[in-house]
Amino acid sequence: MKALVTGGAGFIGSHIVDRLLSEGCEVVIVDTLETGFESNISSSLKNPKCTFHKVDIQNLEALKPCFNGVDTVFHLAANADVRDGLKHPEKDLNYNTIGTFNVLEAMRANGCKRIVFSSTGSVYGEAKVIPTQETEAFPIQTSLYGASKVAGESLIQAYAEGYGMQGFIFRFVSIMGERYSHGHVIDFYRKLKKDPSKLEVLGNGKQKKSYLYVGDCVDAIFLCLEKCQDKINIFNLGTDEIFEVNDSIKVIVEAMNLKPSLEYTGGERGWVGDNPHIHLDISKMRSIGWEPKLNIKEAVERTISYLMENE
Amino acid sequence: MKALVTGGAGFIGSHIVDRLLSEGCEVVIVDTLETGFESNISSSLKNPKCTFHKVDIQNLEALKPCFNGVDTVFHLAANADVRDGLKHPEKDLNYNTIGTFNVLEAMRANGCKRIVFSSTGSVYGEAKVIPTQETEAFPIQTSLYGASKVAGESLIQAYAEGYGMQGFIFRFVSIMGERYSHGHVIDFYRKLKKDPSKLEVLGNGKQKKSYLYVGDCVDAIFLCLEKCQDKINIFNLGTDEIFEVNDSIKVIVEAMNLKPSLEYTGGERGWVGDNPHIHLDISKMRSIGWEPKLNIKEAVERTISYLMENE
Repeated sequence: MKALVTGGAGFIGSHIVDRLLSEGCEVVIVDTLETGFESNISSSLKNPKCTFHKVDIQNLEALKPCFNGVDTVFHLAANADVRDGLKHPEKDLNYNTIGTFNVLEAMRANGCKRIVFSSTGSVYGEAKVIPTQETEAFPIQTSLYGASKVAGESLIQAYAEGYGMQGFIFRFVSIMGERYSHGHVIDFYRKLKKDPSKLEVLGNGKQKKSYLYVGDCVDAIFLCLEKCQDKINIFNLGTDEIFEVNDSIKVIVEAMNLKPSLEYTGGERGWVGDNPHIHLDISKMRSIGWEPKLNIKEAVERTISYLMENE
Repeated sequence: MKALVTGGAGFIGSHIVDRLLSEGCEVVIVDTLETGFESNISSSLKNPKCTFHKVDIQNLEALKPCFNGVDTVFHLAANADVRDGLKHPEKDLNYNTIGTFNVLEAMRANGCKRIVFSSTGSVYGEAKVIPTQETEAFPIQTSLYGASKVAGESLIQAYAEGYGMQGFIFRFVSIMGERYSHGHVIDFYRKLKKDPSKLEVLGNGKQKKSYLYVGDCVDAIFLCLEKCQDKINIFNLGTDEIFEVNDSIKVIVEAMNLKPSLEYTGGERGWVGDNPHIHLDISKMRSIGWEPKLNIKEAVERTISYLMENE
């Protein structure tokens, strides 16, 4: 297999690159290194089977030649900044919606037929049914990020139907683990490094969120690629547990050996468009033989350890 | 009310302009006249309350000043060419997805808070449940047009949530009636004008489609604006009947007084991505007191009469 990973120098993308190389695949990494890090791929690049293109998925003409001979695309590159979407609404459109269109066009130009897409549990908006199944009713979008991922999913489906491609769409909860670089654990960690005596918490801290360890996430993706043959394969990826923001804080301050005073900004939601209760039903993923190896507490622990060891 | 109608010189858009003017509103028409016609708005433009800007919704900077003082936007401008989407996939992205984003940005720049959006029954893909309700399960998209309308709906929802707007989303079946300029009736009409002896029919002619008369469509939109107060209001717009492509042909050839031989290209679908069975559940629209005045046969009859009288 010759694979291409957009966002391959990013958190999840670089773990996919590692897995692909360990399985003997040829790997093309596409990344701008704006939110990805060279350090995430420096050891991979020593492998002669791995090449790197510093190319922006917003630039279709620069993208096309990278896809030469590629048979499977892992499309991870995205603006993942859900919270600040309203500050720059064009970002989710440009990176996520148009970016996905460009990836699909580059595939079409090169006869590449298989795409793995990192979607999000945010596409369910504030779901009426929790835990939420993949077949849930057409939801109302509450964030520009969610809207852009719905647009990306829809484009992949239409391309699969129209141009004979195959799509694997994974709706992730927040992913945790080594190389984690974005999200509430790093936000809390940075705040506490700056001032260990107090911690500002957006909302009331009772938001129920769901997290998954990056190793379990990558396992799930590769198992699906092996086992699923449908034109479009959609899977939730999370765990069966629920973790309150307050539970996360407990793990983080314990690991850092701190006892800050907690200052809540108040309200059910941390920000406009924040989803106070995310819990995905993962029975479809389980039905093909996958099971997360780490629970949420362990995932948060590994994440905070990683952050402390890699300032 | 000061209203702006994108695609206001088009088929449905110009009927909305007429209604707005008849109710004494100020009306701003935005249209490129690429698929719209000056003749559709020439009498409206005699009304001093009506202004016209030949502006492309793809051009955000040109769009913004048109929205000055506008309180309600009827966003009808779109690429409506479902069948040929695969020939130019960038068209649905540029006109429909990015175009809707630009309309929302122009609204935001001008403090305009209310948008009416022409979506489509195509967002249900090949629906599992027929007649299909607004709350149907998250479908798989089968056309680039459907995908672009899903993207547009999602953007409107996220803008409503994030920027305090109100959205009215109408999922139309095919609309028929005076000023009709695109779709199967005009395709058949043109083919028969060229060669009255035979008629090529895409697919097996048994595709079950649904149609609605434009007057009923406009009535429904204005009733919703009057009666619905939710942040996001989503309504199917169609009739309770089903019409096969063959039923349409019967009405058309009768009106034209022809007896062509029918030549079917065969297959359940007329083209890749054609939906062989569209039937929307309209009970939600009925529940607020709307009822279509014309049945499908009457709508097709009015359409073919219009075409024959306006070569």
